[in-house]
Amino acid sequence: MRDVAIIGVGCTNFGEMWERSFRDLFVEAGLNALEDANARGEDIDALYVGNMSAGKFIDQEHIGALIADYAGLASLHIPSTRVEAACASGGLALREGVLAVASGLHDIVIAAGVEKMTDVETGVTIDALASAADREWEGFMGATFPGLYAMIARLHMHKYGTTREQLAMVAVKNHHNATMNPKAQYKREITIEDVMNSPLVADPLRVYDCSPITDGAAAVVLAPVALARKLNDTPIYVRASAQASDTITLHDRRDITTLDATVHAAQRAYKMAGISPKDIDVAEVHDCFTIAEICAIEDLGFVQKGSGGPATEEGMTALDGDIPINPSGGLKACGHPVGATGIKQAIEIVQQLRCEAGKRQVSGAKIGLTHNVGGTGGTAVVHILSINR
Amino acid sequence: MRDVAIIGVGCTNFGEMWERSFRDLFVEAGLNALEDANARGEDIDALYVGNMSAGKFIDQEHIGALIADYAGLASLHIPSTRVEAACASGGLALREGVLAVASGLHDIVIAAGVEKMTDVETGVTIDALASAADREWEGFMGATFPGLYAMIARLHMHKYGTTREQLAMVAVKNHHNATMNPKAQYKREITIEDVMNSPLVADPLRVYDCSPITDGAAAVVLAPVALARKLNDTPIYVRASAQASDTITLHDRRDITTLDATVHAAQRAYKMAGISPKDIDVAEVHDCFTIAEICAIEDLGFVQKGSGGPATEEGMTALDGDIPINPSGGLKACGHPVGATGIKQAIEIVQQLRCEAGKRQVSGAKIGLTHNVGGTGGTAVVHILSINR
Repeated sequence: MRDVAIIGVGCTNFGEMWERSFRDLFVEAGLNALEDANARGEDIDALYVGNMSAGKFIDQEHIGALIADYAGLASLHIPSTRVEAACASGGLALREGVLAVASGLHDIVIAAGVEKMTDVETGVTIDALASAADREWEGFMGATFPGLYAMIARLHMHKYGTTREQLAMVAVKNHHNATMNPKAQYKREITIEDVMNSPLVADPLRVYDCSPITDGAAAVVLAPVALARKLNDTPIYVRASAQASDTITLHDRRDITTLDATVHAAQRAYKMAGISPKDIDVAEVHDCFTIAEICAIEDLGFVQKGSGGPATEEGMTALDGDIPINPSGGLKACGHPVGATGIKQAIEIVQQLRCEAGKRQVSGAKIGLTHNVGGTGGTAVVHILSINR
Repeated sequence: MRDVAIIGVGCTNFGEMWERSFRDLFVEAGLNALEDANARGEDIDALYVGNMSAGKFIDQEHIGALIADYAGLASLHIPSTRVEAACASGGLALREGVLAVASGLHDIVIAAGVEKMTDVETGVTIDALASAADREWEGFMGATFPGLYAMIARLHMHKYGTTREQLAMVAVKNHHNATMNPKAQYKREITIEDVMNSPLVADPLRVYDCSPITDGAAAVVLAPVALARKLNDTPIYVRASAQASDTITLHDRRDITTLDATVHAAQRAYKMAGISPKDIDVAEVHDCFTIAEICAIEDLGFVQKGSGGPATEEGMTALDGDIPINPSGGLKACGHPVGATGIKQAIEIVQQLRCEAGKRQVSGAKIGLTHNVGGTGGTAVVHILSINR
């Protein structure tokens, strides 16, 4: 297998973009990524796109062909493939793209993600998101997505003493980071009190514990290392790409406060890269709810199981902490266009490793990690990126 | 890249299966494929599943995790990925599976496809299928899927003199083949008159020109060649796996009677396998409508452009013809559970090459081809299978 590098990144603003279409969004992200890579459309050998539910959000399947066509690539007749694993769709698109380059089958590959969530009424959006969980055993029984994560939060609080305030601190930190990210949906500070006083969604989770409904697209350009160095002075190397699955339902898990898909994907990724969690300088993790970030930093091995709450309270995950988490603002404050999130995470890490992250730059970051989750952990995908091979 | 073989196949009956669930179907297909491969669940390293629109048909996304879970594989935490390209979803799942094995990343991989289409009212089904075409330029303007293929048929008749009767002959042949396929949805003969007298859907296409709404699942087990020979006495080798895209809309094509995605995927596949169309002994092609089979045999290079109608009339595509097409009965009579079709095509070719196709056996078949199309040709994927490497 060949070593693979990311040579270009492009991302739209994230937010409720009533004036933009699904097609606009991915074209903007893709063109920006190509420009950043010093590559042209005709250089592209294949395209992978992560998208969760365009069938419900914009009444459109067959997204691969649509994207190749509207990006002006139809005359190249390149393979263009949509992959889906709910909110991990972007991470899976990145993994399939990396695999296509690593195998030697393709040279320049675009891995993208896109979701346009605001063109339908909120009820449709909530219903579409519930389809990431087991519809028969969870959704049809009335379990919304926040409801499922609320159960995880409640048990985490019960087992480990995690406090309501510690959950809030995740949101406060991520909002703070987002104030320094021009692309973020919510570029404003919030306080612990703001979180505690926000409307209850599913006890103990409140509005400010939840990631928002977001429109957005993101794209990266992948190339084999030899070619990457010709096109780009600062290729960022993909040191590991690992994916794992678990039961789609919570009730079948050995412990709902541990996402075993994360644990297994992370272990595989560390092994692939030949490193351990302590070697990671910065990470973008899947904070679809505040409790999800706490579980993630535990399951990824940054802190011991159960100590995610105190670690957050002590500032370990802040920009200047031991392991800065979600410098982009995360899903919570940068926004969560579900299919695009996994790609946006990679873009943030690339910018951090290139020292192009502006005011939110993590100083001296050399190795970064992305962690993207589908549903309540039915799927997890972990990538490790580095400035060195 | 390693050579890849298919070492096991499994398929449900195709039809309107009111008493079966989406989950039932893929578990049956997957278990049959494993049994056929002499493999066990714990041997599986990864899973790819093609599915077009479970979001609309059964209100469920995140199909990869669901399938791994319900197949009893959750404890293995294997990567499980859904791919989608409308009716070509199955073919793409096969291609991603082949790529995963060829690259050396995984050894034993299941490539599957599943669609449960009859759990919703017909209007929802028609709407979901229309999402394979460009919703904004075609679907929202009132162009149904049969309507788009009807335009292709009308122009083909105008340019090449293809007759209404020749279209009917495709359906008659495929129904005849299906009488010999125990898994087929329609195991009965029809006549040219039956087709000509069936209700008009979109002029010139009538009900019997159209593939049906179908429930079904199909799975194949893939392995690298060295391992394949240990597990199975009759591995079937994947000599080529090629995919191409084109404009998603018909109106942007240079010629709507030619599917350029098919042309390019086929050219790449022939080159990869080092053969020409005349070396193919049997083929399963994408006959979602009768006109689609006529275009396919032209675009795949079996006959000259424009002569697909006469070739069908002369019996060239019959079971005992020069190039037997759709021995399974095709989408038309075997049925078309959209996400499963691309995998079912591969299963039929494997059975033909193993000489296990019973009364529909094509004598002496050594090299076979599958051709799976998304939408009206926005995506096409071609595989070439052989008894020799």
